[in-house]
Amino acid sequence: MAPSIDELSVSTIRGLSVDQVNAAQSGHPGAPLGLAPAAHAVWRRMKFNPQDPKWINRDRFVLSNGHACAMLYSLLYLYNYDLSIDDLKQFRQLNSKTPGHPERLDTPGVEVTTGPLGQGISNAVGIAIAQKQFAATYNKPDFPISDAKIFCFLGDGCLMEGVSSETSSLAGHLQLDNLIAFWDDNRISIDGDTACAFTENVPERYKAYGWHVLEVPDANTNIDAISAAVDEALEITGKPVLIRLVTTIGFGSKVAGTGGVHGAPLKADDLKQLKKSWGFDEESNFFVPSEVASYFAEKVEENKKVQAEWEKLFAAYKEKYPKEGAEVQRRLDGKFPDGWKDNLPTFTSKDKAVATRKLSEGVLDYLYGVLPELIGGSADLTGSNLTRPEASTDFQPPSTGLGDYFGRYLRYGVREHGMGAIMNGIDAFGAHYRNYGGTFLNFVSYAAGAVRLSALSHQGVIWVATHDSIGLGEDGPTHQPIETLALLRAMPNTSVWRPADGNEVSAAYVAAIEGVDHPSILALTRQGLPQLEHSSIEGALKGGYTVWPVEGKADIIIVSSGSEVSISVDAAKLLAEKKGLKTAVVSIPDFFTFDKQPIEYRLSLLPDGIPILSVEVLSTFGWSKYSHEQFGLNRFGASGKAGDLYKFFDFTPEGIAERAEKVVAFYKGKTVGSPLHSAFEETK
Amino acid sequence: MAPSIDELSVSTIRGLSVDQVNAAQSGHPGAPLGLAPAAHAVWRRMKFNPQDPKWINRDRFVLSNGHACAMLYSLLYLYNYDLSIDDLKQFRQLNSKTPGHPERLDTPGVEVTTGPLGQGISNAVGIAIAQKQFAATYNKPDFPISDAKIFCFLGDGCLMEGVSSETSSLAGHLQLDNLIAFWDDNRISIDGDTACAFTENVPERYKAYGWHVLEVPDANTNIDAISAAVDEALEITGKPVLIRLVTTIGFGSKVAGTGGVHGAPLKADDLKQLKKSWGFDEESNFFVPSEVASYFAEKVEENKKVQAEWEKLFAAYKEKYPKEGAEVQRRLDGKFPDGWKDNLPTFTSKDKAVATRKLSEGVLDYLYGVLPELIGGSADLTGSNLTRPEASTDFQPPSTGLGDYFGRYLRYGVREHGMGAIMNGIDAFGAHYRNYGGTFLNFVSYAAGAVRLSALSHQGVIWVATHDSIGLGEDGPTHQPIETLALLRAMPNTSVWRPADGNEVSAAYVAAIEGVDHPSILALTRQGLPQLEHSSIEGALKGGYTVWPVEGKADIIIVSSGSEVSISVDAAKLLAEKKGLKTAVVSIPDFFTFDKQPIEYRLSLLPDGIPILSVEVLSTFGWSKYSHEQFGLNRFGASGKAGDLYKFFDFTPEGIAERAEKVVAFYKGKTVGSPLHSAFEETK
Repeated sequence: MAPSIDELSVSTIRGLSVDQVNAAQSGHPGAPLGLAPAAHAVWRRMKFNPQDPKWINRDRFVLSNGHACAMLYSLLYLYNYDLSIDDLKQFRQLNSKTPGHPERLDTPGVEVTTGPLGQGISNAVGIAIAQKQFAATYNKPDFPISDAKIFCFLGDGCLMEGVSSETSSLAGHLQLDNLIAFWDDNRISIDGDTACAFTENVPERYKAYGWHVLEVPDANTNIDAISAAVDEALEITGKPVLIRLVTTIGFGSKVAGTGGVHGAPLKADDLKQLKKSWGFDEESNFFVPSEVASYFAEKVEENKKVQAEWEKLFAAYKEKYPKEGAEVQRRLDGKFPDGWKDNLPTFTSKDKAVATRKLSEGVLDYLYGVLPELIGGSADLTGSNLTRPEASTDFQPPSTGLGDYFGRYLRYGVREHGMGAIMNGIDAFGAHYRNYGGTFLNFVSYAAGAVRLSALSHQGVIWVATHDSIGLGEDGPTHQPIETLALLRAMPNTSVWRPADGNEVSAAYVAAIEGVDHPSILALTRQGLPQLEHSSIEGALKGGYTVWPVEGKADIIIVSSGSEVSISVDAAKLLAEKKGLKTAVVSIPDFFTFDKQPIEYRLSLLPDGIPILSVEVLSTFGWSKYSHEQFGLNRFGASGKAGDLYKFFDFTPEGIAERAEKVVAFYKGKTVGSPLHSAFEETK
Repeated sequence: MAPSIDELSVSTIRGLSVDQVNAAQSGHPGAPLGLAPAAHAVWRRMKFNPQDPKWINRDRFVLSNGHACAMLYSLLYLYNYDLSIDDLKQFRQLNSKTPGHPERLDTPGVEVTTGPLGQGISNAVGIAIAQKQFAATYNKPDFPISDAKIFCFLGDGCLMEGVSSETSSLAGHLQLDNLIAFWDDNRISIDGDTACAFTENVPERYKAYGWHVLEVPDANTNIDAISAAVDEALEITGKPVLIRLVTTIGFGSKVAGTGGVHGAPLKADDLKQLKKSWGFDEESNFFVPSEVASYFAEKVEENKKVQAEWEKLFAAYKEKYPKEGAEVQRRLDGKFPDGWKDNLPTFTSKDKAVATRKLSEGVLDYLYGVLPELIGGSADLTGSNLTRPEASTDFQPPSTGLGDYFGRYLRYGVREHGMGAIMNGIDAFGAHYRNYGGTFLNFVSYAAGAVRLSALSHQGVIWVATHDSIGLGEDGPTHQPIETLALLRAMPNTSVWRPADGNEVSAAYVAAIEGVDHPSILALTRQGLPQLEHSSIEGALKGGYTVWPVEGKADIIIVSSGSEVSISVDAAKLLAEKKGLKTAVVSIPDFFTFDKQPIEYRLSLLPDGIPILSVEVLSTFGWSKYSHEQFGLNRFGASGKAGDLYKFFDFTPEGIAERAEKVVAFYKGKTVGSPLHSAFEETK
């Protein structure tokens, strides 16, 4: 019997995938061989337009087991995305469009960057949240302008990672019935049979989370059964769906069902017998039967019509609902509302001392009113992070009575890593969402895996990271960050704001909201901070500026951030008064922004000839790029009252002044160059 | 009816706990009020000796919901640990023995440092693994020298964190029937009712993991029911047990059952009515009825006898099994076997180029033979990390046929964070375990929350972190660390070894194995590295030393680590040959160790008067403490062949030489001071 077009399509996907791995002599052939039927079954019913891969109402496909990317690239090629057969041949080569794991910025049609396990399924939960929120906000009777579904493939590795547990539990709670996940149950991970470490009952676990679970026992071959399961899944309401696909890793290969086929190219004779088994010439390479090419071309045409119909619908929507239509259009255009930042809070030194987390709350309240695309939440620290805009509704299934899907406040639960990955998903949905999540700064580390993907794939998510130092007090060293800012500042493409007062908080939010292509972490205090005399939004927006100027040449410059800036200013006053030393204070609320300023500007703040002391009650690691001497906390903190701790560690005007004096004395008569000078024009 | 001694004991625990919080006007009264009956029921049957809190066969109690520590301190006080009533009165004060979350180093009787949610239960899994392994290794017929049980309390927050999902799944797989966990099901978290974010079916989830689940519906009051559940749990074999305790947060208080009682002191009138309800004087404070004091004193005496009997048993064991007895005694004494490091691999430059992960495998093979306390594993990357000693047996339930409990190789699954927390638990068990876990360096970030607790609580765990740079090649930027070493180097009390060749790998292991009071991360290459002419174990053990000396004064010094050291040496040769420039190369395999060397030694390597260039194919963040100029990678990597990537990013002898030349030219005629100088003697 001749193979059906579907079987032939599956064989083509399999063939292109293993040929990529073979060409590179690197990569993962096992998962594509097992998953190709499911991929075909899903993709042939998904709606999307390869010529407009960002179309807002496309169905999304997330490959959480990102190592199977050869399969994804095969699909993108067959569906005529901007990816050529030559791109497939360049699989895993430098500067190709087909990197070793899928990257959102490199390859049209890749929704999110995956590979680090557990992230993709968690991103998918975020995309599903965004879709629900968008639909609940803008859909109107007879105008379902948003009804996209989210399909996600994941493997055993993703299921073992805690981050997927966090987000799967939340997805069940949130009743995200727009999400269908497919578990590639191939019983093999890198260490061999999953029997060695992963023997839990996954379907029962997911049922416990509130998911609906379906099973396809013969997913290596039974495309119809997979399709039937998808049909059934699409009918389920009030629950996300997990479809268990029982597959064989490396299906059809001589090493099928073994760990050997997971991450190593197939041998030449194995490739041959595989191709033969599909009815292909055994010498063929990157082969696409003409009927398969036609089949996919036809699918693409059908899909274009789907989008065209949606465009008509949306045009009518804009006519009938001009206000909402304009707002959606603005968001799709990636534009901010006019004047959105006109009325941000500003402060003078006459205003009272306030914790920057509290000032953040004020800004969020304001932004909530002017930015319908603002959505946020907290990892179960709402009352501490102060992240909930007063006017907001919780994002909850209406049936819970606790909120609605149009709500813009997310109760993440104690799930920092999951929150980080979900934020990436919300961002990846599109529609200009500006989304933030709150936790203690110390626990952003729990989510480091997600934050680095935000940075790598240019996702402009915002962390409201409060309790940013020993200033949190009694909770003690388990909760007091020391090394956290070093991690985040060392991360490429990442803003780390540590504002010193109200004006700097407003600046940090402007930069973070506008920073759509990189994550921003806002490190905020628990404790009150005075409003500085010379702080300004404009200054802070440069990443660094002088908050305590002196007349003439300074004897010493203190560079500082956040809660230590005002103490440094007090130290400067003390030094002037008691020691006759002129001390300028430079606030550097964000290294990332400061480093982008022209060197002339930076040198004007940190010039030659003046010793520079950095003051920050965190690890000094990294501060030597701006300073000759560092005063920080290169040990863990302690449990006690915040005031007691600052005194104990000498972060007082007196303690800082004493060190500044030592610095002045030490550099007296020595040639002091600015640390900003570099022998290189740039570092790659 | 007069209260029973048990009821009175529970009231006393409750009273001491809320009085601590009240004295501090800070802390968490809610959980202690709800959990005191369970705590009492468990502690009265645990075996332990307050005068010998490290007795190896004590039962362990882990408070995973660490914010409930006032309750733990109350118990430790009542059971006559080295903790006075005055210590309780100093709750959450600077330098007290009663910090805001339990800290292993501060308070005798605290097994592990908890507070960051999800860690404690995961530590408990590690302790249970260690106990099983210890028992399987040393117990003999009629000599059950190890039969301790591990009891762990946890709250909803712990259950929401992914790390607990990872370790609970593994605990089920490993059939750890020595572990009994108690879920404080009080339905309140910081954001209020758990209905807002946590509605999964926890018992069903744990059953899916392979746990046995029991329920106590009236755990606020029914001490007998809790005891009966513990009895039942102790009889369960082949499964860990989760006991669901239905409690009321803040039980008895006027704000019982609300979020308000979670993390804020009770009001004065509420305290009064509570005390009255217990039959205490309503003005009493830190009150312990005399019959309660006697009761606990008696318990302590009984417990001492339990240990005394064990000591007798162990003495007889040593007589009957002198070899094993001596080994156990040595381990309990915290001593290494004589000569354990006598035959570590050493290399000369004639030896062939080898990847440091492969060299690590050789060292692990050697150490496995000489250190019975060595136990390790990998997060499902065994074949990549090369972490499995050839002679080892897997740690597995015998019934699986895959190994045995005496096995010393752990299959962690794809659970990096869980692995980190379990390693802390294995370390906390005692018995001198030296334990390591393998993953890619990039994914140590997933476990940052656990690593920081290793550092804070002085747990000498070892991370075998392979694939430590773009040198991993085709897997691409999702897998290539950039910022990871900055995080780890900025973490206090943490060694981060990045060895350059075989001798340095041996040195790194010596230091890591001997480093029982801090975590060590070994960053190792995927790609082969040549054996250096002047490398040595002795040099590397200083954290930094010259690997390429020059005669007379150098024109420039290159400081480097790991895979870039040999390229820097090649650059030095090139510079000498082509440009007549004298270039010394200093290898700094571990900042933490190097920083501890006398300043004279450090200055001899990085002296005044010579410009210093750092070379490392990772973020330059932090390197300015050792160098004037930095060559690194302040962007994410790329997918491609390792060789292509090193060329693309210019990490070649030519690329480094070109930069070195620029540095020499830039500093010509300028005064160059060593970056090691400091105006301060020390930084706190």
